[in-house]
Amino acid sequence: MGLDTAAAKPHEKLARMLEGDMDAVGTMIRTRMASEHAPRIPEVTAHLVEAGGKRLRPMLTLAAARLCGYKGTDHVKLAATVEFIHTATLLHDDVVDESRQRRGRPTANLLWDNKSSVLVGDYLFARSFRLMVEPGNLRVLEILSDASAVIAEGEVLQLTAASDLATGEDVYLQVIRGKTAALFSAACEVGGVIAGAPAEQVRALFDYGDALGICFQIVDDLLDYGGATATIGKNVGDDFRERKLTLPVIRAIAAADESERAFWTRTIARGRQEEGDLEEALALMARHGTLDSTRATAIEWATTAKTAILALPASELRDVLHDLADYVVERVV
Amino acid sequence: MGLDTAAAKPHEKLARMLEGDMDAVGTMIRTRMASEHAPRIPEVTAHLVEAGGKRLRPMLTLAAARLCGYKGTDHVKLAATVEFIHTATLLHDDVVDESRQRRGRPTANLLWDNKSSVLVGDYLFARSFRLMVEPGNLRVLEILSDASAVIAEGEVLQLTAASDLATGEDVYLQVIRGKTAALFSAACEVGGVIAGAPAEQVRALFDYGDALGICFQIVDDLLDYGGATATIGKNVGDDFRERKLTLPVIRAIAAADESERAFWTRTIARGRQEEGDLEEALALMARHGTLDSTRATAIEWATTAKTAILALPASELRDVLHDLADYVVERVV
Repeated sequence: MGLDTAAAKPHEKLARMLEGDMDAVGTMIRTRMASEHAPRIPEVTAHLVEAGGKRLRPMLTLAAARLCGYKGTDHVKLAATVEFIHTATLLHDDVVDESRQRRGRPTANLLWDNKSSVLVGDYLFARSFRLMVEPGNLRVLEILSDASAVIAEGEVLQLTAASDLATGEDVYLQVIRGKTAALFSAACEVGGVIAGAPAEQVRALFDYGDALGICFQIVDDLLDYGGATATIGKNVGDDFRERKLTLPVIRAIAAADESERAFWTRTIARGRQEEGDLEEALALMARHGTLDSTRATAIEWATTAKTAILALPASELRDVLHDLADYVVERVV
Repeated sequence: MGLDTAAAKPHEKLARMLEGDMDAVGTMIRTRMASEHAPRIPEVTAHLVEAGGKRLRPMLTLAAARLCGYKGTDHVKLAATVEFIHTATLLHDDVVDESRQRRGRPTANLLWDNKSSVLVGDYLFARSFRLMVEPGNLRVLEILSDASAVIAEGEVLQLTAASDLATGEDVYLQVIRGKTAALFSAACEVGGVIAGAPAEQVRALFDYGDALGICFQIVDDLLDYGGATATIGKNVGDDFRERKLTLPVIRAIAAADESERAFWTRTIARGRQEEGDLEEALALMARHGTLDSTRATAIEWATTAKTAILALPASELRDVLHDLADYVVERVV
């Protein structure tokens, strides 16, 4: 990826190349989110939709379908489905994490209440399933319903692994593969499936999405210990305060001496955090180079993603997806 | 329906007639609830499964399919799907209602936490969709995904209507049609669809389930002001404390004089409840005969259900479904 800052970023290029399709996705999202009977539903969903987000996941579905030569219109429905699932999980995540900010704005659970977030999330899940049925492709339904189950499994695993110092890199990978990568890989895979692409291309799309999603989440977890609040709309140290075992911490714990281990036991396992603990955690991670090594791991996954996407036929769209993997490491898109 | 108490109750007869199928449903539920990766999931779901419940909804699916001459095995998957959706909504309802008891046992949100209930509910929703895809019948998928959306809409509507004295009988009907009847009607309808029954039979099954579900919920709401705690595993007056506008209250408010209206405004609209208010609410409902008139409305819906089911071919199973409608009025099954 070029470092020329004047050039459009990969996700911006992608948005431009898929502009017509993305407009159709936007219209479909607005139409299908509406609820005749319960006005609270469009209130909550409009809040989320207005807050924006880059809509990376639906773009992946559209790009995958186009990349495989798809000429129909069902990819728009699948892209909207993917965004619905994502929005539903955001609503529920913010309840579970007791988050107060999302994309730099107050969360729905703060503006309304947890109850509304739970129920509106359920509504969006149901609407996503209704929408994904329409193309009438059973393989697509299997992929997206499996992905939804894997997402929930990842979230539950994260919940039970939180504050458990025994959490290793294998469990961490399982968690992020579930909570984040499963929707990335499904988004890519269904694009190929709806296009009737050959099995090896569908597999390559899955692998690309899987690696991209893992990379995306590792970078997100890294930014939680380093990004600027203004940029990410999230406070540094949230994961630390929530006692989440992310890669930089897992590696710092693995390398800890006795006194460091006591620190992690107190702050993460027991949750007895004091003023200055976040700074100390950052110092320990710096001492063991775990922020750097985490970044290196993210770059490895970006490389895996890039390798996977090269199995698809050459095209401008493919090259943008290729560059997107590098971009994810540079900053969360 | 006979009043001979020695005779088996309709839901018990139904359970006996569908015994083999229900065993298969039970096995399928246990198998498909399991999660390889997140042990918290089977812990929570096992708690719910062990607590039992009459499994009325899956029996409706099995009975509807058999009633329409179905000879295959896909109805077992659909019945399990219906129970999964029901279980998922119970988990989320208990979070939303902040319930502490369900079927006479502590709720999952009390035993674990709200977070687990939200996420395990999501997992069950996703698994239900995965399971309903397997028979490969697109109409079934439309019905069940639509029902899931209508359930969530009903719950959201109930949330926004709570404590609002302007809530009328039309909104109440919409709420209970969503939160309860939608799954009853869908459960019946998909049984007919999977059996390839003619449109008028499928319609009759839908109408039966719709009326049965409405009747079921009206009786449930009535019992909240009159059933014995020991029998229903729920405390009398829960709805009053949660400021839910159910039929007996809606009718009492409609008939209220000025001082009664002040009572409802204080206790329901403003939520300033004091010792003795529940007794006063019960006295006002008795004064205006709203518990009796609510019971009469429930009986009307039972009659609607019975009329609908008679459109199906005569059989012992049909007669049991017919009697079930009366039984629902006599006591929540």
